[in-house]
Amino acid sequence: MFDPYDDAHFMRKALQEAEAAYDKGEIPIGAIITVGDRVIARAHNLTELLNDVTAHAEMQAITAAANFLGGKYLKECTLYVTIEPCQMCAGALFWSQIDKIVYGARDEQRGCITMGTKLHPKTKMTGGVLAKECSEILKRFFVEKRNLN
Amino acid sequence: MFDPYDDAHFMRKALQEAEAAYDKGEIPIGAIITVGDRVIARAHNLTELLNDVTAHAEMQAITAAANFLGGKYLKECTLYVTIEPCQMCAGALFWSQIDKIVYGARDEQRGCITMGTKLHPKTKMTGGVLAKECSEILKRFFVEKRNLN
Repeated sequence: MFDPYDDAHFMRKALQEAEAAYDKGEIPIGAIITVGDRVIARAHNLTELLNDVTAHAEMQAITAAANFLGGKYLKECTLYVTIEPCQMCAGALFWSQIDKIVYGARDEQRGCITMGTKLHPKTKMTGGVLAKECSEILKRFFVEKRNLN
Repeated sequence: MFDPYDDAHFMRKALQEAEAAYDKGEIPIGAIITVGDRVIARAHNLTELLNDVTAHAEMQAITAAANFLGGKYLKECTLYVTIEPCQMCAGALFWSQIDKIVYGARDEQRGCITMGTKLHPKTKMTGGVLAKECSEILKRFFVEKRNLN
């Protein structure tokens, strides 16, 4: 049966965040956090604008979701992120005890799978949702950046 | 020769931050960041007050130091932290390309050494500086917390 709220639906919202990052000259990675069918946090990478290596999309989304919920644990939540989380973000997700992580494309160099970062035992992770779109916006960004320099 | 600015000197400043956390009912972990002999950032754990799993002492110190320096890389800096960093904080330190990490006591359960978190190849890490004092404040906190409940 057709589900309007499938993983691709929410990944498209994360991709909109990645586009917002792109437009600001930031490495285009976006994230959202949901509870059931409801989006409770949206964020995109802001490391350049904030001059801060900790300002990854996922980190901001975790802080925003906890703020929305009024509690620091995200046990009923799902994170959708366009690229596989890094060690820092996976480490933050570990502490949040989030229920589920859905990423778009793999980051085979710096992602938490390659790096061996441990997730919370209660957290499930799946990937490959709109992987092509999620990696293409990154490729487009780096090609454009190279051509500008 | 006596060096007034040795690692123990700066670790005592990180311990002062841990005491500030203790006084607020936060898990007492403190951190400072230095450039040469100058302290450019001080922070302590605020996860309860901010309702935010990302508000570890190290994360706030990284953000504050970058803000002070006007750039996101901490290449000339040293982080002093009372307890060995977790996956999240070590992951953030990876991105910061920090020169040196000095921790007080080990966290054998959740620390980056046990968890196998990768540091930046340029980053050196040492530990055991005032380890007893750094772990004792944590023990004191948990004993008191248990007695209150």
